[in-house]
Amino acid sequence: MIIMKSDATKAQIDAVVQDIENHGLRADVSQGDFRTIIGLIGDERKISFDHLAMLPGVKEARMVETPYKLISREYARLAGESEHRVIKVGNVEIGGDKLVFIAGPCAVESKQQLFKIAEGVKKAGADVLRGGIFKPRTSVHSFQGLGGSSEEDAVEALEWFREAGDKFEMPVVTEVRGESQIDLIAKYVDIIQIGARNMYDQDLLVKTARTGKPILYKRHFGAGIEEFLSFAEYMVAEDNKDIILCERGILPLGKGRSYTRYTLDLSAVPVMQKETFLPVIVDPSHAAGRRDLIFNMSCASIAAGACGLIVEVHHNPAEALVDGQQQITPDEFAKLVTACRSIHQAIGNRTNGG
Amino acid sequence: MIIMKSDATKAQIDAVVQDIENHGLRADVSQGDFRTIIGLIGDERKISFDHLAMLPGVKEARMVETPYKLISREYARLAGESEHRVIKVGNVEIGGDKLVFIAGPCAVESKQQLFKIAEGVKKAGADVLRGGIFKPRTSVHSFQGLGGSSEEDAVEALEWFREAGDKFEMPVVTEVRGESQIDLIAKYVDIIQIGARNMYDQDLLVKTARTGKPILYKRHFGAGIEEFLSFAEYMVAEDNKDIILCERGILPLGKGRSYTRYTLDLSAVPVMQKETFLPVIVDPSHAAGRRDLIFNMSCASIAAGACGLIVEVHHNPAEALVDGQQQITPDEFAKLVTACRSIHQAIGNRTNGG
Amino acid sequence: MIIMKSDATKAQIDAVVQDIENHGLRADVSQGDFRTIIGLIGDERKISFDHLAMLPGVKEARMVETPYKLISREYARLAGESEHRVIKVGNVEIGGDKLVFIAGPCAVESKQQLFKIAEGVKKAGADVLRGGIFKPRTSVHSFQGLGGSSEEDAVEALEWFREAGDKFEMPVVTEVRGESQIDLIAKYVDIIQIGARNMYDQDLLVKTARTGKPILYKRHFGAGIEEFLSFAEYMVAEDNKDIILCERGILPLGKGRSYTRYTLDLSAVPVMQKETFLPVIVDPSHAAGRRDLIFNMSCASIAAGACGLIVEVHHNPAEALVDGQQQITPDEFAKLVTACRSIHQAIGNRTNGG
Amino acid sequence: MIIMKSDATKAQIDAVVQDIENHGLRADVSQGDFRTIIGLIGDERKISFDHLAMLPGVKEARMVETPYKLISREYARLAGESEHRVIKVGNVEIGGDKLVFIAGPCAVESKQQLFKIAEGVKKAGADVLRGGIFKPRTSVHSFQGLGGSSEEDAVEALEWFREAGDKFEMPVVTEVRGESQIDLIAKYVDIIQIGARNMYDQDLLVKTARTGKPILYKRHFGAGIEEFLSFAEYMVAEDNKDIILCERGILPLGKGRSYTRYTLDLSAVPVMQKETFLPVIVDPSHAAGRRDLIFNMSCASIAAGACGLIVEVHHNPAEALVDGQQQITPDEFAKLVTACRSIHQAIGNRTNGG
Repeated sequence: MIIMKSDATKAQIDAVVQDIENHGLRADVSQGDFRTIIGLIGDERKISFDHLAMLPGVKEARMVETPYKLISREYARLAGESEHRVIKVGNVEIGGDKLVFIAGPCAVESKQQLFKIAEGVKKAGADVLRGGIFKPRTSVHSFQGLGGSSEEDAVEALEWFREAGDKFEMPVVTEVRGESQIDLIAKYVDIIQIGARNMYDQDLLVKTARTGKPILYKRHFGAGIEEFLSFAEYMVAEDNKDIILCERGILPLGKGRSYTRYTLDLSAVPVMQKETFLPVIVDPSHAAGRRDLIFNMSCASIAAGACGLIVEVHHNPAEALVDGQQQITPDEFAKLVTACRSIHQAIGNRTNGG
Repeated sequence: MIIMKSDATKAQIDAVVQDIENHGLRADVSQGDFRTIIGLIGDERKISFDHLAMLPGVKEARMVETPYKLISREYARLAGESEHRVIKVGNVEIGGDKLVFIAGPCAVESKQQLFKIAEGVKKAGADVLRGGIFKPRTSVHSFQGLGGSSEEDAVEALEWFREAGDKFEMPVVTEVRGESQIDLIAKYVDIIQIGARNMYDQDLLVKTARTGKPILYKRHFGAGIEEFLSFAEYMVAEDNKDIILCERGILPLGKGRSYTRYTLDLSAVPVMQKETFLPVIVDPSHAAGRRDLIFNMSCASIAAGACGLIVEVHHNPAEALVDGQQQITPDEFAKLVTACRSIHQAIGNRTNGG
Repeated sequence: MIIMKSDATKAQIDAVVQDIENHGLRADVSQGDFRTIIGLIGDERKISFDHLAMLPGVKEARMVETPYKLISREYARLAGESEHRVIKVGNVEIGGDKLVFIAGPCAVESKQQLFKIAEGVKKAGADVLRGGIFKPRTSVHSFQGLGGSSEEDAVEALEWFREAGDKFEMPVVTEVRGESQIDLIAKYVDIIQIGARNMYDQDLLVKTARTGKPILYKRHFGAGIEEFLSFAEYMVAEDNKDIILCERGILPLGKGRSYTRYTLDLSAVPVMQKETFLPVIVDPSHAAGRRDLIFNMSCASIAAGACGLIVEVHHNPAEALVDGQQQITPDEFAKLVTACRSIHQAIGNRTNGG
Repeated sequence: MIIMKSDATKAQIDAVVQDIENHGLRADVSQGDFRTIIGLIGDERKISFDHLAMLPGVKEARMVETPYKLISREYARLAGESEHRVIKVGNVEIGGDKLVFIAGPCAVESKQQLFKIAEGVKKAGADVLRGGIFKPRTSVHSFQGLGGSSEEDAVEALEWFREAGDKFEMPVVTEVRGESQIDLIAKYVDIIQIGARNMYDQDLLVKTARTGKPILYKRHFGAGIEEFLSFAEYMVAEDNKDIILCERGILPLGKGRSYTRYTLDLSAVPVMQKETFLPVIVDPSHAAGRRDLIFNMSCASIAAGACGLIVEVHHNPAEALVDGQQQITPDEFAKLVTACRSIHQAIGNRTNGG
C-alpha cells in the first residue's frame, strides 16, 4: 500500500502507477478527499517497498499483511472514501438506510409458477426477485434447474425471469455456475449470484466481475471469514466494487443428528461489516433447510446487523421441485418483513457495522 | 416409554413401576391431566416391551429411539404436561413471558469490585447476578479465580457473592467445576452453573442435579445439539427438571484468522425450544470474545427466540483479571437491555419456540 | 438401477435404454460376464420403477438411495465388473499391484528448475511427474503460477513440462483451474488434476471429463466423503471412469494454534476403497504443510491402504516460489519411497480396500 | 522460565524457589546434567521477570508464551533432560524402543468373559490389559458398565480385573470418570485412564495425577492439539510426568453420511511427539467405530510414529454389551500385531518423533 503525500501531483501519482506496472503488478488508485492511496494487485514480493518509498510524492509505502486490502474498510477510511458502499440496482439501494428483501422461488419451474410467486413476494414487500435457473446440485441424479436441460430451456427461463422482473418492478438475480453461462446470464439479469459451492472458483469470479454487474457472493460452508474476504478481493481487483457478501451457513458441528442443513454464522455479519465496506446480507433458507426456523433466523439476521435478506418463497412449497421443505409462503414472508423492519428500528437502523 | 390407559389405577401404575425396577431400571412417572406416561431410565434393552405392553392398565409400550426423552417436549405433550417449563428462582421466572437478564463480572475479584458491578447491573435491568469463583482455564498458568487460591478465599468470595445478591435483590449464579465444590457452592447460591468444559462430565451432572438447585447448563463448543440434550437428560433423570440450557458458541470453522472466540450457533435456540420443554438462554460474551459484537449478538439471540441472556459486565473492563476484552460496561448493558425488550415485542413476545 | 435377466437379449436392453431416454434421463449400461446392469443418470423421480420393472428382460428395477452409484463398488460387483479399476497411463498402472509415486515441484518456475527436479525424482523412484502451472491461490496478491502471467507463458511452461515428461519417461499431471484452460492443458498432459478448491465446480468436472483424459481429483477440505464421491459421479456420468481420488487433508479442528495446514483424514482411504472401484492416493504435502512430517505421513498413507502418493519435491525448497516449507528434497523422497515399499509388503500388498 | 547459571549453588536455587513461592506461585525444578531450569506454575503475571533475572545465580528469566511448558520437549532439551520419557509399568516400557500393545474388552462384562479375552490377547501379543468398568455414555439410558450398577459390582469387577492382570502377567488400565472413583480405582490398577469426554475436567486431572499412577490421557474429539497439551500440563504440574497421550479421533467434518465414528487425526502423532517428551499412542477402535478398518488404521498409526496402540478385542464381538461393531477377535489382533512390528522396522524403529 502506498500513501501519497497530500500535495502529490497527478504526474507523481502516474509515475508511481507506471513504476508498479513495470514490475508486473497492477495498481488500484483510490483518490480520496484528502489524499490518494495506491494499492498493489499481484504478488507484492516482486517489488521493493524501500524503492517505492523514495519515489517523488510518496509519503509511505508498506506491505499489507492481510490477504485482502482492496475491500478493506480500514483502507477505505485511510483514503477518505466511503466506509459503506451503497450498491444501486434500478431503484433499489443495497447497503443503504433501508433493509433490502430479495425473494422468490428456489428454482424457476414454469412461467406461471414464476409470475405467481413474483406477484406474491412483491405484495409482501420484496425489493428484488430471485430464482434459480442453473442449479448446483450435490448429485448428478437430481434436477439441475431448467438451465440444466438444454440451451433453449435456459434462454426461455431467462426470458420469463426478465419479464417477471419488469412486470413487477423488481431487479432480478440468478446464479451462474460455470464460465460458459456468464455471457448469457449477464444479458438478462441485474445481479449475478455466485453460489457457495463456487466460492473458491477464482476463474469464475474474475470473469463474472468483468461483466461489471453487481454480484451477490455467497460464503462457502467450509470457508473461514478471512478466506471468504480474500476471494471477494479477486472481484474487486477487476475493478468491480459492487459485491454483496452473503452468509448462508457453515458446516454443522458435532456428533449425532443435525437439526438444520447448515449452521448460520451470524457473528460473521457484524465482523464482515467491520472488516470491509461491502454490504452484508443473509440467506436463512439454505442455512436452516426447514421452514419453521425461517422467521426466527431472519429476525436474528437483521438484529445482528445485516442490511438485507435473501429468502426462498413458493406459493405452494409442498409441490416445489427443489428444496420444498425450506420455502415459505408469501403470507409468511410478509409477516417476516414486518417483524424485521421493527427490529431494524429497535437497533437504531444500524447496519454496516455501526 | 409406557403410555397407561386413561383409566389406569394407581395400583396398576405402581405395579408397572415395580416391574421396571425389578429389571434394574428406574421409572419416571409423568402424571398429566389426561393420562400417565412412564419413562424408563437406564438401558432399555434389559426389558421386553412386549412383556410391558401386556401388563394391566398399559395402553402402549415402545422403545424410544431418541437418546433423550425425559426432557422432550413431545413427551411432555403426550403426557398432557406443560410444554414450557418456567423455572422460579426468588421473584424471577426463567422461561416465562418476560426476558431474563443475568449479568455480572467474569470473575469475582474483590468485594468492592463485586458490589460496584452488582449495583450497576441491577440499575441497568439485570434480574440475576453472575460471578465466577472457580474459573475453568485452559492453562494451569492462568488465574483460576479466588476459588483456585484456597478454601478460605473460596468461602470468603461466596459470602460476598451471597451478600451482594441479597443487598441488590438478585438471585445469584456461579459455576461448579469439580465434584468436591458442589456442597460448598450449593450452600451459597440460587442457581449452579455447569460450564461448557464440564458438559460431558456425567458424574458432576448427576451429583449437582441431586442438590435440587436450578442448573444453568452450557453447551460444549464441540457438542452437537443431540449430544447436549442427551447429557441434559442425566440431570432430569435425577428428578431435577430445573435445567436452563445455554448456547455459548461452537468451534470456529475454516482456515485463517478467527475473528471471534467461538461461533455463536443461534439456530440452536429455536431448535432446542422445539425439542425440549426447558428454557434456552444465550451467552454472547464467551462466544464473541470481543466487546464490540455483544450488542448485535445479544439482539440477535433474542430475535432468534431466546428467553434470556447471560452477559459479562465490568465497571472497568480494561482492569478485569479475566476476559477483559469481552466485558461491557453497565451503561452498554443498559442499552442492550432496552433494545432486546423492543425486539422481544417485535417478534410477538414469543420465546420457547412459538 | 435396473438389473436385467441373465438371458436378456440385446434388443431388450436397447429397448430399456430407449425407454429411459424417452423420460429425459440417460442410461449407463454395464455389461458384466453374467448380467447387465443399467444405471440411470439424472433425476430418477421422473420415471416409474414399477413401469421399468415390467419391461421385457428386466429382472429388477429399484431406485438407488445413495447419491452415487456409477462409481460404486457394490454396483460393479453386482454387474460382475472389476471391483478395482486399474488406470493405465503410458507404462504406469494406477490402482494395480505396485505403488505409484507422483512427484515434482509445487509450481513450474523455469525450464532448468523443472528438468533438475524431474531428473531427481525419476532417480528416486517417481512414476509420474507433477508440476503446477495454473496455481489456485487464496490471495489475488500471491504468485499464481506461470499460467497466471500470460497465455504465452502458460504455453511455454506446458511445452517444458511435456518435454520433461518425455525425456525422463514419466507421464505428466498438472492442474486445471478454470474451464477456459481445459483444451490447452489436455493438449500437453497425460493426467489432468482438479484441485480441492474446484471440487464442487460441476461444470468444470463435466467438461474436463469429456476430454477422456484420466483425472486426478482432490477432495475439498470441507467436504464429507459422501459429497466427494457424489461429485466424482459427475465425471463418471460423462463415461470417463479414469478418476483417481486423492485425499489431501480436511479443515483443522479446535481452538488454538494449528500445527499443520490441514488434517489428513487417513480413514477416508480404506473407506473410499470399500465404497468405490476407483483408486485412492494421498497428498501428504498440502495436508501437512511442513517438511518434517512428510516421511511419517507418507508411510501412514500407504499403511492405511493407499495405492500411491503425490508428493511435492524441490531440489532447493528454501528457494521455491510457492510452498517451500512443505517440499522435500529428492534424497528425502528416495528414502520415503523405500520405506513405503516395505510397508506395502508388510500389509500384504493390499491396496484398494482388501 | 528461569535458567540458572551452570555454577549456581544449591542455596541460590533454593532462594529462587522461595522467592517464587512468596509470590503465590509454585516452582518446578529440573536439574539437568549441565544446568538447572526452574519453571513457574501458576499465573506468571503475578511476578516480575526483571526482578527474578537479578537474583543471584540466575542466568536468564523470561515468560514462556506457550500455554504448556512443563511437558515441552524444548524445555526438557534446554534443561539437558531426556527428550523421550519412558514410562515403566511392571515389566512394560511405554515410550521405549519396542511397541506397546494395550488390548482387552470395551467393557468388563463377567469374570469368565474377562479371563477368556485376557488369555486371548496375551497370546496374541498384548502387553497391557484394558477393560471398562465405569463407562462414560452419551445416553443415560445405555449400559454404564458394571461400575454404574452399584459400589459392590464395581469392587467385584475391579477384583476380577486385578486378578486377570496378575494371572496373565499384564499391567491393567481402566477409566476413571468422576472424582469419587479415583481412590477405589487407584487401589486396583496400574494405569488410570482419563477418557476423551473428561479431557477438560481439570479437577479430575489434578486429583488423578496426585495418585502418582501413570495416566493414559485421551484427546477430546473437539480439542485442538494445543488445548490437549495445555490440559496435560495440569497433571505434570502435580509432579506426575507419567502421562501417556492418546489420539482417538476428532469430530467428522462435512455434510452427509459419516462412514466412521470419528476422524482419526494421525498427523497429531508426530506433531505431539515433536512438541512434548511424553509418549503418544493411538486408539483406532473408537475412532473408526467399525471392525473392518482397525487393521489398516492400526498400521497407519504405527507408520505415523506412534509408540503403541490401545485396541478393543472381544472373543465374540457380536455378543458384546457395548461397542460390539468395533471390537476385533484375538486372531485378528494377532495379525495386526505382526504387521505393526514389520512397519515399525520399516520406518527404522523410530517413535517419539525421530
